[in-house]
Amino acid sequence: MQYSLQAGGKRLRPVLLLAAAGAVRGEERAEEQAMPIACAVELIHTYSLVHDDLPAMDDDDYRRGKPTNHKVYGEAMAILAGDALLTHAFYCISAAPADTGLKPEIALAIVKDLTALAGARGMVGGQAADILGEQGITSLQELEYIHLHKTGDLIAFALLAGGRVGGASVAQLDSLAEFGTKLGLAFQVQDDILDLTGDAHKLGKKTGSDVAQGKVTYPYLLGVEESRALVERLTSEAKAALESAKFKKPEYLLALADYMMQRDH
Amino acid sequence: MQYSLQAGGKRLRPVLLLAAAGAVRGEERAEEQAMPIACAVELIHTYSLVHDDLPAMDDDDYRRGKPTNHKVYGEAMAILAGDALLTHAFYCISAAPADTGLKPEIALAIVKDLTALAGARGMVGGQAADILGEQGITSLQELEYIHLHKTGDLIAFALLAGGRVGGASVAQLDSLAEFGTKLGLAFQVQDDILDLTGDAHKLGKKTGSDVAQGKVTYPYLLGVEESRALVERLTSEAKAALESAKFKKPEYLLALADYMMQRDH
Repeated sequence: MQYSLQAGGKRLRPVLLLAAAGAVRGEERAEEQAMPIACAVELIHTYSLVHDDLPAMDDDDYRRGKPTNHKVYGEAMAILAGDALLTHAFYCISAAPADTGLKPEIALAIVKDLTALAGARGMVGGQAADILGEQGITSLQELEYIHLHKTGDLIAFALLAGGRVGGASVAQLDSLAEFGTKLGLAFQVQDDILDLTGDAHKLGKKTGSDVAQGKVTYPYLLGVEESRALVERLTSEAKAALESAKFKKPEYLLALADYMMQRDH
Repeated sequence: MQYSLQAGGKRLRPVLLLAAAGAVRGEERAEEQAMPIACAVELIHTYSLVHDDLPAMDDDDYRRGKPTNHKVYGEAMAILAGDALLTHAFYCISAAPADTGLKPEIALAIVKDLTALAGARGMVGGQAADILGEQGITSLQELEYIHLHKTGDLIAFALLAGGRVGGASVAQLDSLAEFGTKLGLAFQVQDDILDLTGDAHKLGKKTGSDVAQGKVTYPYLLGVEESRALVERLTSEAKAALESAKFKKPEYLLALADYMMQRDH
């Protein structure tokens, strides 16, 4: 569990979560209360990587520049480490009220959001569609389903949960969810582009693996240039969605959206 | 997910959970409120079986008389089905307040118990110790650790969660937890005995698999007769633990303890 948690990574989802809490509440206290939930979202992300890298799934040997979990500890331990990381995410949320004074109703709403967005109709559903898709898709519509759920849902969760910790109104939650969904899709399209055109050293993993595996991606369906235009358009739409509600300090969230669009790893 | 959930099984953990709620509250309403949590514990149990049966783990082809999940759907889908079952268990708990009027504080306490008892220091930890142990244990102490966590902890959770739904006092919760831990250990020793002496048809899985895999078990360490005596002793101790607090209707729980000791599958 520690090996994969400490293997680095951008910590993008927890950063988005903290930024969403700060956008709503506009003060330090929001980050303190959001920290256990930020840990939870990174635990979920890490478990999903450990399981996705398994030989029966994407069969990846490297992640974040290091050997994948099962390469070091074996498949059985990697499966169990993933299971325990997933379980521990819910511990972080359930312990938050005692540790930080978060209201139990809010913590429970966050648990419910996470089960919806990380489960069978969310992240796991997206990964399942991706695996099944390798057996012969894919229309742009199917690909969008995969990306929206496999990647977008957990990013949407991060923003929603940050909003909940910050005490967001319904309008603010809707706005954050839409921001997250657009941003999540943009993020995954960007990932597809980087796999094709990026620098393996900066990415910490082999590039060209999508082509090698015959995977259908946005650049495959639309070309690289049109995919880049799509990332820009989705990022603009995400930022516009954030303007549909009033936030105390949305600047950092807006800056993160631009950072994500311009990233090279 | 449905395939493994509907493959049968004794539903022992949910039955224990409902019985614990009824023991504390002594009325029908307890069962209604306990039902979503009873579903959650069966979801967790089912996910653990799906993952434990994987080729990288125990590599079992049959479970409850049917081909195991990965035999039907492949390894990738079995891993994902397990992940989604685990995630959905927390959905059931988080949705309970809206569905049945369970207090959010109680639901959150149940989430926390589950993460403790099903996670790295609970059920998953027991399974990890079991897998590592195959590489050369095992003292009786190590074996007890494995059994206590791999099997005992989720049974203890079932009783604790039932107690929480029923509105148990601290003394009642302690009593239920001890009852569950003793019963869980007895259950697993009984499982070891049945693997050696049971009827494959009644069990729905091959017998003799522990011996075939060179697994260290209670009968291996103590002999069958002494293992049977241990099951009886643990069952008596469990029942005695239940008498350390006052319950409105403990009869059904006590009867379940006897049923578990006498079961042949």
